[in-house]
Amino acid sequence: MEQLFNLLAAYKDEMVEIRRHLHQNPELSFEEVQTPAFIAGYHEKLGLEVRRGVGGRGVVSTLKGGKPGKTVALRADFDALPIQEETDLPFKSNVPGVMHACGHDGHTATLLVLAKVLTEMKGELEGNVVFIHQHAEELAPGGALPMIEDGCLDGVDVIYGTHLWAPLPMGTVGYRTGPVMAAADSFTIKVQGKGGHGAQPHLTKDSIVIGAQLVSNLQQIVSRRVNPLDAAVVSVGAFEAKNAFNVIADTAMLTGTARTFKEDVRVTIEKEIDRIAKGTCLAADATYEYIYKRGYPAVVNHKEDTEFFVEVAKKVPGVVELEEIEAQMGGEDFAYYLEKVPGTFFFTGAEDAAWEETFPHHHPKFKINEDALLLAANLLGAATLTYLKQNTNERIEVTK
Amino acid sequence: MEQLFNLLAAYKDEMVEIRRHLHQNPELSFEEVQTPAFIAGYHEKLGLEVRRGVGGRGVVSTLKGGKPGKTVALRADFDALPIQEETDLPFKSNVPGVMHACGHDGHTATLLVLAKVLTEMKGELEGNVVFIHQHAEELAPGGALPMIEDGCLDGVDVIYGTHLWAPLPMGTVGYRTGPVMAAADSFTIKVQGKGGHGAQPHLTKDSIVIGAQLVSNLQQIVSRRVNPLDAAVVSVGAFEAKNAFNVIADTAMLTGTARTFKEDVRVTIEKEIDRIAKGTCLAADATYEYIYKRGYPAVVNHKEDTEFFVEVAKKVPGVVELEEIEAQMGGEDFAYYLEKVPGTFFFTGAEDAAWEETFPHHHPKFKINEDALLLAANLLGAATLTYLKQNTNERIEVTK
Amino acid sequence: MEQLFNLLAAYKDEMVEIRRHLHQNPELSFEEVQTPAFIAGYHEKLGLEVRRGVGGRGVVSTLKGGKPGKTVALRADFDALPIQEETDLPFKSNVPGVMHACGHDGHTATLLVLAKVLTEMKGELEGNVVFIHQHAEELAPGGALPMIEDGCLDGVDVIYGTHLWAPLPMGTVGYRTGPVMAAADSFTIKVQGKGGHGAQPHLTKDSIVIGAQLVSNLQQIVSRRVNPLDAAVVSVGAFEAKNAFNVIADTAMLTGTARTFKEDVRVTIEKEIDRIAKGTCLAADATYEYIYKRGYPAVVNHKEDTEFFVEVAKKVPGVVELEEIEAQMGGEDFAYYLEKVPGTFFFTGAEDAAWEETFPHHHPKFKINEDALLLAANLLGAATLTYLKQNTNERIEVTK
Amino acid sequence: MEQLFNLLAAYKDEMVEIRRHLHQNPELSFEEVQTPAFIAGYHEKLGLEVRRGVGGRGVVSTLKGGKPGKTVALRADFDALPIQEETDLPFKSNVPGVMHACGHDGHTATLLVLAKVLTEMKGELEGNVVFIHQHAEELAPGGALPMIEDGCLDGVDVIYGTHLWAPLPMGTVGYRTGPVMAAADSFTIKVQGKGGHGAQPHLTKDSIVIGAQLVSNLQQIVSRRVNPLDAAVVSVGAFEAKNAFNVIADTAMLTGTARTFKEDVRVTIEKEIDRIAKGTCLAADATYEYIYKRGYPAVVNHKEDTEFFVEVAKKVPGVVELEEIEAQMGGEDFAYYLEKVPGTFFFTGAEDAAWEETFPHHHPKFKINEDALLLAANLLGAATLTYLKQNTNERIEVTK
Repeated sequence: MEQLFNLLAAYKDEMVEIRRHLHQNPELSFEEVQTPAFIAGYHEKLGLEVRRGVGGRGVVSTLKGGKPGKTVALRADFDALPIQEETDLPFKSNVPGVMHACGHDGHTATLLVLAKVLTEMKGELEGNVVFIHQHAEELAPGGALPMIEDGCLDGVDVIYGTHLWAPLPMGTVGYRTGPVMAAADSFTIKVQGKGGHGAQPHLTKDSIVIGAQLVSNLQQIVSRRVNPLDAAVVSVGAFEAKNAFNVIADTAMLTGTARTFKEDVRVTIEKEIDRIAKGTCLAADATYEYIYKRGYPAVVNHKEDTEFFVEVAKKVPGVVELEEIEAQMGGEDFAYYLEKVPGTFFFTGAEDAAWEETFPHHHPKFKINEDALLLAANLLGAATLTYLKQNTNERIEVTK
Repeated sequence: MEQLFNLLAAYKDEMVEIRRHLHQNPELSFEEVQTPAFIAGYHEKLGLEVRRGVGGRGVVSTLKGGKPGKTVALRADFDALPIQEETDLPFKSNVPGVMHACGHDGHTATLLVLAKVLTEMKGELEGNVVFIHQHAEELAPGGALPMIEDGCLDGVDVIYGTHLWAPLPMGTVGYRTGPVMAAADSFTIKVQGKGGHGAQPHLTKDSIVIGAQLVSNLQQIVSRRVNPLDAAVVSVGAFEAKNAFNVIADTAMLTGTARTFKEDVRVTIEKEIDRIAKGTCLAADATYEYIYKRGYPAVVNHKEDTEFFVEVAKKVPGVVELEEIEAQMGGEDFAYYLEKVPGTFFFTGAEDAAWEETFPHHHPKFKINEDALLLAANLLGAATLTYLKQNTNERIEVTK
Repeated sequence: MEQLFNLLAAYKDEMVEIRRHLHQNPELSFEEVQTPAFIAGYHEKLGLEVRRGVGGRGVVSTLKGGKPGKTVALRADFDALPIQEETDLPFKSNVPGVMHACGHDGHTATLLVLAKVLTEMKGELEGNVVFIHQHAEELAPGGALPMIEDGCLDGVDVIYGTHLWAPLPMGTVGYRTGPVMAAADSFTIKVQGKGGHGAQPHLTKDSIVIGAQLVSNLQQIVSRRVNPLDAAVVSVGAFEAKNAFNVIADTAMLTGTARTFKEDVRVTIEKEIDRIAKGTCLAADATYEYIYKRGYPAVVNHKEDTEFFVEVAKKVPGVVELEEIEAQMGGEDFAYYLEKVPGTFFFTGAEDAAWEETFPHHHPKFKINEDALLLAANLLGAATLTYLKQNTNERIEVTK
Repeated sequence: MEQLFNLLAAYKDEMVEIRRHLHQNPELSFEEVQTPAFIAGYHEKLGLEVRRGVGGRGVVSTLKGGKPGKTVALRADFDALPIQEETDLPFKSNVPGVMHACGHDGHTATLLVLAKVLTEMKGELEGNVVFIHQHAEELAPGGALPMIEDGCLDGVDVIYGTHLWAPLPMGTVGYRTGPVMAAADSFTIKVQGKGGHGAQPHLTKDSIVIGAQLVSNLQQIVSRRVNPLDAAVVSVGAFEAKNAFNVIADTAMLTGTARTFKEDVRVTIEKEIDRIAKGTCLAADATYEYIYKRGYPAVVNHKEDTEFFVEVAKKVPGVVELEEIEAQMGGEDFAYYLEKVPGTFFFTGAEDAAWEETFPHHHPKFKINEDALLLAANLLGAATLTYLKQNTNERIEVTK
């Protein structure tokens, strides 16, 4: 383990260099070309087994250890966002309107250098490591699902992933068992009333009045129909019924989002929106069209693997504090991996206290602390080696 | 006509005396015994053809005129109210908890003395007069309907009725073509949700939340679903869901009233309450029971007869002002007569300016101005004679 | 009177010709140039006293009768609408996107020819006639108010006006005492909440939820706060809060109309919208901006003048039926004239039964029956002559 | 430790006997006389230092160990409920309408016998044990607070308590760090409108319509104003506005409950109910009276002590499963002890699989599995001994 930490520390500058290179050359979700080519090239030089174009644009490379054992997967996403960078950093984005404003550049650099170090330690490796470099995390339906369908998890026993997280201080590692990021779905309801003159409401079915009733009624989903112990949000973000002031609206269009952590709550919300829309429209003799579109499911960390990770992290250099964080209402398609194999997704504190202020992720002035890359690599590497070591021993004991 | 006015004026004291006798001996709706006996006896002494027990407790008597002609019906109601009189008048009610607090005693006295006068003028009478003394106007389903079914309108060509009206000054006569008093219906909605613990709303269907939604939604009937030019009211008067503070209500009971002037509006309201209850409950997966109970229909005055009456009234002694009044939201079973034969129902001002204040009808201190009896008799008598004269002439011309 | 009817009948073709000329050359409200010039020229040829540019673009001409007497004003509006005509009539509009789709061309032709006829009868005329040709009726704030301010009613004793009305059959004349067309106001409410992420409602003030509550609450104005016997409408025609599905709205904009027939109801509605907006926003710790903009007031026909008109109309050739119509919820700036002088505004049936169907006013295929022009001229002319005759006599009697 | 388990097992029958005695003789909250006398007598026989009447009716007894050390408090509540027992058990309640339907009889029996056993082991006891027998848990404001004020926690280092829990299977022990039972508050809102006749809404301020709006608006507290990650409930349990069907309600009375786990959420709810009531009434020109009454605060288990307990429980005989349970929305005044000293409150599975069905707590047929008493005693005893042993050692080390 000492060797791992020493090697990573020695390559820290390379990590930063790669990260800056990627930062200057960001590519949008589902449009990544140079980034996966760069990753694959790096892996090929290391001598790994490389698959390009996995699930579309992903790169999956495997390192076979010198000894038999389990297989650990590590995942980094590599797409950027449609945001115009507003910093004056020397390595700022070269692409107008596109920016690595979420830290995926750091994720990728971390994982590449970790692959290099683990390759150097290959001889003692008691099992295998799969490096999953994923495209298109920022844009549903995302890259995770097609990569899984294309076999990226075949033979994998456990998976780890991290997010560099600017809201957490440098040195803090956030973990959580169970739901850690929400399922983020969207919905639209089109209320079809019957338009007419504003002075003759009795000849119409007033879509605005119906839509208003609908918005009020939807509040009951969270207040009455979901277990109060389960977190859930139903928000209508847009209400559109544009007419002359003296015309009664023919239709009203409502658009919103639902956030949940459990499948049954998600199902309940989808069903209850429909029930409420149906009843509310019926009460006014109107009709409706309802579309509920699932986004990523909730990221649900496995208990044993998260507890294992916490134990490992306690001994990793650079870890100042291990914090059990609150679940986040945002979404992540790491969720799909954890539906297939055990594992955990954790947050590596990446606040840059020297920066003008801590801008949130997706902000044009977003900036991570580059020291966090080494910490993330230490954590992922330590988890990998410890897991392989513990599970090989068990396996051997069992087969004895 | 002069003779009519002179005779009535001469018998004014008798009118007042009868009225006071009735006032002292009030009888509740559907419990009238002495009053109809008194009326029938009076008529019999006059030598009219008298039918007792018409439609239950009504008295219907006919005066055949000396000359052939049409038949005019005049109606007075004679039941009292379950109210404890709070005046100190010398002729106050002798019956505890029962009071003529609506002027029906005056209606009856007026009509009895008018019968006496018309009997004296019988020789010149060019047609017939039917005196309809009705029981149970105050209590639905009322006496009018069974009396009609029992033939009280057979052979009748036109009907007149009046209400002594304390809110109008002495000398003022209120008339209105078309709807003049509202249909007054009642309804109950029982929302059947599913009770439970206040801390576990997701295991319940919260009847109070559903009932609340229902009350809000019902506002749309008048605001959106009835022609703004048609008067209508839907009021929920009781909302009952009584439970411990920490229990979610299993049921909520709503009770209310609907007031309308037109049959189609009445039908719309009955139907829309049902539609709204259905949709609102469906939106919460709850059920409901709905009862809509029709009270008296709207009193709708016939146009020609009302205009005729206004012309007649202009020449009646004691009339200071003829006022086209607003329709009243209260109900009257005179409505049923006007559904069968033409006619009009008018209001005879009966304010007693000398009384402590003008208490509304149905008040324990209600008091009418007894001068109004003579005016009412003049009006009903003049309308009767004029109608018979005009229509006989026409008839004769036609047959020539 | 015979002479009036005969002369008008003789000039019927001219009336139609003028109307078609105007129809082919429509001008928008507040942009009228040729039309008032045409009118003024016509009047000048008749030798009337002509004032151009009254209140902006109106024309007011006076015919002094041969004998002394009262002064009657007759009003016709002459602006057209921003509508592309969709008929294939030989005299269809020559101006793209502009059309006489409300019958003002007919109003103008009628009044011009009536001026010609009355001028020919000048000798016997016992008083004066003022011809008010008004611009800009279709567009608030309208032409009536500035024309009045510019003196068009000075010395006027009574005013008559009519609308050619396609929904009424040819030969039917619609009248109504009291309110006959509604006050048509508009309002906007801007709800200022606090935007934010759709997953974090507790950090926001959700404008859509507040706006929805507001729409529901506004239903109570008509259902609870206005006398059920008074007609009133409050309609929200637009609800705009457009955001991404996962963003909570910072503001919501509501726009609507209010229709009333009485000043106190109008005042109540303006005040109650404010009260409801205030309370509803307060309940959510939000603020609002509220603008209530008065349109034309209600057209309120004077009772005596309307009854006078009905008596006159009974004897006018071409009148098949006199119908007491329901009040209309639409607006008309004739209202302003009736606030200053007595008079009445009536509807001349102008249905063209031969046309493909009866399109409503303001429709691209709107068409009037040209026979109605003669009827309208007969009615206005008969009312004028009768009024002058009756009132002169009275005057003379009085001065005797 | 072996000794503890052996002794408790040996006295199991006594535990059951005591429990049955108490079950037959239940006493209501704040009316307990025999029960505390029984407890105090038992303790006195053991030779403990006994204080009667603590905080009203509580009994607090102290066992001084043979060796110096920390002080552990153990709490059992002993009041019964106003419920008529509906079982046919041989030891069913002798008191009509009063029943131990929540297991407090078992709590008391468990703790009494544990005191006996620990007294026998006194010599080796490295510290002291305080037995807190509390009255009036079932009825706010409860017995815990006055007992604390009366000094029952003086000198106490840690406290443990358990609830025999019928919904958990025998052998299962439920634990949870942090909030485990909710703060349970109540509120009333009296809406003061203005009553009147159902046909004249415009002369009233309709309390039912306002109250309905209020109920709908209150849904927004949980749906919009509380962090979705925080559990909260606001339920209106009663809505009372009883009038004749044709009368508009003068007042409406709403009563409800609020459940929370965090102080800031509790404060938010109290404030937001007020804000919503204020705005909603203002929107209708009505007023209101609002009372928010705090019940017990949330029971918040201390993290270290709960983790300690879980480690201890793993080795306790009879424990089949240790389950991290969901928080409960019900209330418990054990909350007050944990606000003063560290500790944990856990649930001892007490399902009686042989009983006709598992009735919920507070049910007339509620029944616990008496085997659970021994398990509860084992758990409390083991926690006590382990705590005293571990902390004495530490203390000694520290003082070295």
